[in-house]
Amino acid sequence: MEFIEKLLSTSRRNRSLLCIGLDPDPELMPVTDIAQFNRAIIEATSDMVCAYKPNLAFYEALGTSGLAVLEETVKYIPDGVPVIADAKRGDIGSTAKAYARALFSIFGFDAATVSPYLGYDSIEPFVSYEDKGVFILCRTSNRGARDFQDLHTDGLPLYEVVARKAGEWNVRGNIGLVVGATYPEELRKVRSICPEMCLLIPGIGTQGGDLTSAVSYGVDARGERAVFNVSRQILYASKGQDYAGAARDMADRIRQQINSHLTR
Amino acid sequence: MEFIEKLLSTSRRNRSLLCIGLDPDPELMPVTDIAQFNRAIIEATSDMVCAYKPNLAFYEALGTSGLAVLEETVKYIPDGVPVIADAKRGDIGSTAKAYARALFSIFGFDAATVSPYLGYDSIEPFVSYEDKGVFILCRTSNRGARDFQDLHTDGLPLYEVVARKAGEWNVRGNIGLVVGATYPEELRKVRSICPEMCLLIPGIGTQGGDLTSAVSYGVDARGERAVFNVSRQILYASKGQDYAGAARDMADRIRQQINSHLTR
Repeated sequence: MEFIEKLLSTSRRNRSLLCIGLDPDPELMPVTDIAQFNRAIIEATSDMVCAYKPNLAFYEALGTSGLAVLEETVKYIPDGVPVIADAKRGDIGSTAKAYARALFSIFGFDAATVSPYLGYDSIEPFVSYEDKGVFILCRTSNRGARDFQDLHTDGLPLYEVVARKAGEWNVRGNIGLVVGATYPEELRKVRSICPEMCLLIPGIGTQGGDLTSAVSYGVDARGERAVFNVSRQILYASKGQDYAGAARDMADRIRQQINSHLTR
Repeated sequence: MEFIEKLLSTSRRNRSLLCIGLDPDPELMPVTDIAQFNRAIIEATSDMVCAYKPNLAFYEALGTSGLAVLEETVKYIPDGVPVIADAKRGDIGSTAKAYARALFSIFGFDAATVSPYLGYDSIEPFVSYEDKGVFILCRTSNRGARDFQDLHTDGLPLYEVVARKAGEWNVRGNIGLVVGATYPEELRKVRSICPEMCLLIPGIGTQGGDLTSAVSYGVDARGERAVFNVSRQILYASKGQDYAGAARDMADRIRQQINSHLTR
């Protein structure tokens, strides 16, 4: 099934635009077995989400066993629920091909995040997997996003140029954009440039982005095609042994908060 | 020892500005054991190079065992020779911290490549390892480099803005830049902006960058602080069992070609 169909179907079934970022931080976890921690989180929340999004950094930081933990984690996620690899890869064509193979063929992710800095030939090897989703970094949620993404190029900030280019490149309909909730005006702008594109929106939760504006500016005309990612606020809702239940409660709360801001 | 000292010391000892990119491609290799292939290449060439540079994509494409192969490969490299992780990572601060830990603390790389798109807070966690080198992507060697890196922002192309920012951020003296040999004029420009910075220069070899201009524009005033990377042309110089010897011959040839263009 195509990524976007899988996403919409899960989102409708679970009435959720919430994505949980599976970013294990051993220092914040109440247990030592990371795969089991992820499994408990997934089992407690898989009817509350539209997707999961492991960020590869946290698995690479576990050393050589990290990718095995990641592989195991992906297996715990029920078949119907899409998994987005937050990898932010970006390299020259032949290398990008190896990254795309790793993420899509070897690990079996349904989608991946990529960086635009190297241009189209760094993204094309990902996009050529027609049934996979490719989220291009556009306006990120961090403070440093301003350093280059806001620079004006021929009258437009760079992130807008990226959004427009992504629209041009989206001939297979499988390209989306990453836009942080921490910058509501930029999110509104990107949504106006790409009214039908899927947006991956981190930054609500611990990063402090405003949920109300993120939802009203982020979703498409049908109140869909927006994926709101929350990681730490859910994973570490409790630091005790009740972490999975606490994660479920928090996920449900955020899911409902998001839904309460949908006009339809 | 600091990365830059280690690099200069190896470069002077081996009279070499050549870096070999350890990018295993099972389809091009005459043997099936990738760690052994890398070991044979390293043993045949470690007195010919100033550094090695494995690109992580090719290890991730090997699946869960890939990082173990990478770890083994790093161990085969003699202590004195610096190893650059070509990872092109770029993520928000807390995540960048995990990537930096993975590359520097867990895998023990001496340097890493990073993407500038997310700005300073995505790079700072790497730079804060004072004895490690951090190469920021500036003007890459691929065709798509033009898509965004050449866009003019307040009169300057983006890659020049990145070069200038990198200069500002280089308070610890451990930042370098990645500039492709395939764009000699841009390389000359970057060297003029950052006369004392270390440049990592891919694109000679299979990618077709002109060696003469790459060397004369890339090195600093002393004919140093430039790292010319070649991967496929050396690794796959022979597709037979004599691959290690053929790699050594090719490495020696390129090393001497580079040296012949140094004015001193």
